[in-house]
Amino acid sequence: MTNPLKTGATIGILGGGQLGRMLSVAASRLGFKTCIFEPNADCPAAHVAHTHIMADYSDTVALTKFANACDVVTYEFENIPTEALDLIEALTPIHPNRNALATSQDRFLEKNFLTRIGLTTAPFAAVDTAEALEQAIDQIGTPAILKTRRLGYDGKGQSRLMSPDDADQAIADMAGAPAVYEGFIDFSIEVSVIGTRSSDGAISCFDPGENVHKDGILHTTTLPAALTPSQRTDAVLLTANILNALDYVGTMGVELFVTPNGFIVNEIAPRVHNSGHWTQAACTVDQFEQHIRAIAGWPLGDGSRHSNVVMENLIGDDVDRIPGIAKTNTEIHLYGKADAKKGRKMGHINTITGPAS
Amino acid sequence: MTNPLKTGATIGILGGGQLGRMLSVAASRLGFKTCIFEPNADCPAAHVAHTHIMADYSDTVALTKFANACDVVTYEFENIPTEALDLIEALTPIHPNRNALATSQDRFLEKNFLTRIGLTTAPFAAVDTAEALEQAIDQIGTPAILKTRRLGYDGKGQSRLMSPDDADQAIADMAGAPAVYEGFIDFSIEVSVIGTRSSDGAISCFDPGENVHKDGILHTTTLPAALTPSQRTDAVLLTANILNALDYVGTMGVELFVTPNGFIVNEIAPRVHNSGHWTQAACTVDQFEQHIRAIAGWPLGDGSRHSNVVMENLIGDDVDRIPGIAKTNTEIHLYGKADAKKGRKMGHINTITGPAS
Repeated sequence: MTNPLKTGATIGILGGGQLGRMLSVAASRLGFKTCIFEPNADCPAAHVAHTHIMADYSDTVALTKFANACDVVTYEFENIPTEALDLIEALTPIHPNRNALATSQDRFLEKNFLTRIGLTTAPFAAVDTAEALEQAIDQIGTPAILKTRRLGYDGKGQSRLMSPDDADQAIADMAGAPAVYEGFIDFSIEVSVIGTRSSDGAISCFDPGENVHKDGILHTTTLPAALTPSQRTDAVLLTANILNALDYVGTMGVELFVTPNGFIVNEIAPRVHNSGHWTQAACTVDQFEQHIRAIAGWPLGDGSRHSNVVMENLIGDDVDRIPGIAKTNTEIHLYGKADAKKGRKMGHINTITGPAS
Repeated sequence: MTNPLKTGATIGILGGGQLGRMLSVAASRLGFKTCIFEPNADCPAAHVAHTHIMADYSDTVALTKFANACDVVTYEFENIPTEALDLIEALTPIHPNRNALATSQDRFLEKNFLTRIGLTTAPFAAVDTAEALEQAIDQIGTPAILKTRRLGYDGKGQSRLMSPDDADQAIADMAGAPAVYEGFIDFSIEVSVIGTRSSDGAISCFDPGENVHKDGILHTTTLPAALTPSQRTDAVLLTANILNALDYVGTMGVELFVTPNGFIVNEIAPRVHNSGHWTQAACTVDQFEQHIRAIAGWPLGDGSRHSNVVMENLIGDDVDRIPGIAKTNTEIHLYGKADAKKGRKMGHINTITGPAS
């Protein structure tokens, strides 16, 4: 294990959204300062960070200042420009590593990686042209979904094909971006596993949670998920497999479809994950602290779950419900965002529903 | 009830220590920003606050800037200069109110207040001179303790009198400061109640915790305390009595001695309190969030205790134990202080010991 960071050390976080905000709070519990790199003023993470460097990812002076100010650097989103990472990495360690980031930044590389280590994904094919799409439709069939290889999240950069007739529209929707064609999966439920790997290779995974989406955005995560004990074990082992194969240090989110033929890996995210927010209420050590412990070279904490819990996202004007929610025995997490725009994640709530079962 | 503060509002905190730090984190969960007023650089609260105004309490320009930047102001320690409060209060509401602060800033006023509302304190007398001390010794006897009326904490500014012969030394120890003479109390245990009163007068108290001190500093708080059910009820009602009598808004710590003749009030603190740190681990809403909810005009949260818990302070080089503690199922809170000086509060740990009993 690398030398653990000591009280007063500074953790750099690329990205100033709500994940950076909650990472910053977790870092403070262990005595660390945080420095946020984020182009936007008044970002959620800056409200609880020691320093906010407000600059663009192309600003090499600011990036150098950031890297020099930090003892270790991490990130709260995947789509960080490679040049920025090159510059930072020459000065300061970055966790999770570049390979993990590069793999999960690109849906095609990610699915190739998962297949290579023996896991199952939806049938997929790279699509850069109308001809390639035609071939993919022949090979995989419809219904299917065409997604940009990079930069998509929460349903953005995606186009559904219910029949081959939708091909032209799908190509137009990609606007020239390289894409991946994915066959539809017939699944019963979606679960996700939040796992963390420390710098000495120890792994700790939280219990799988069951996700429900609404309008393409995560709506609730419920613990326990409707899985058999052996399915829970499989989901955790599969996640450990991914973490080891990537020589990963930090917390990762792994989304899984449950099908009659076993798990299909939908997506991996090289960071703390929205579907792991329930850990704040139902575990002594939450996903944010596990991530900070891992990248700081600390031992992982005990992530065992003491309670059943439901996490619900507050999207857009859902936050108007807060006065009512504040009167109930529910843990509130608001992100300090000024405008409750449609589809915007404004906060979440965690409700304990009983002792762990 | 006053209009509740909305997401994005700024809460001002006078004082930048660990209590301000944890208040700031609690404020962030409800979507608020914090602005810390603290003369010292690199203070614990500034690591997790949006803004830190580093200035002296006599700096009227900085105080004005602070007051104007905040929607409401609170404090994490009692000994704020009156002139600073006068200036702030003319611009921005302060909670808890000035009367509560003035009462608890002065041990003599505090004991008078407590006696007036029908509670029991140690026998006491104001002592400004050697003659007054002689009278107090005649009246109350020895052993006893002479304490400065203001500015004392964690055993500082105190002098023990085991016999009248110690009078000269005790007067010398006060160095001319007005003092209060307190008779010794024969008590079995010390407990404290952390109670919160909202702006519409609702009150919520956490379960009483049992305190053990070491070298004059709080060492552990254990829940449940060794009290009968009716003692628990009495302790909570007595706390509510104090909160109502002061028209208090916010969280208060009340230290009680348990004696064969009932409770004796040792001290009240008009702020979140070290003996309430266990609430972070054992309740959905902790003492810090209750305080923020109260001063922000929100309804109080549910402070019921789901677990038994032991809080232990990490004083001075106790923090060297962290690598071992990090491997156990214990919640760690470090304050980000650079030097582990003797007697300095560096952090605390909360260990869940079972379901609430």
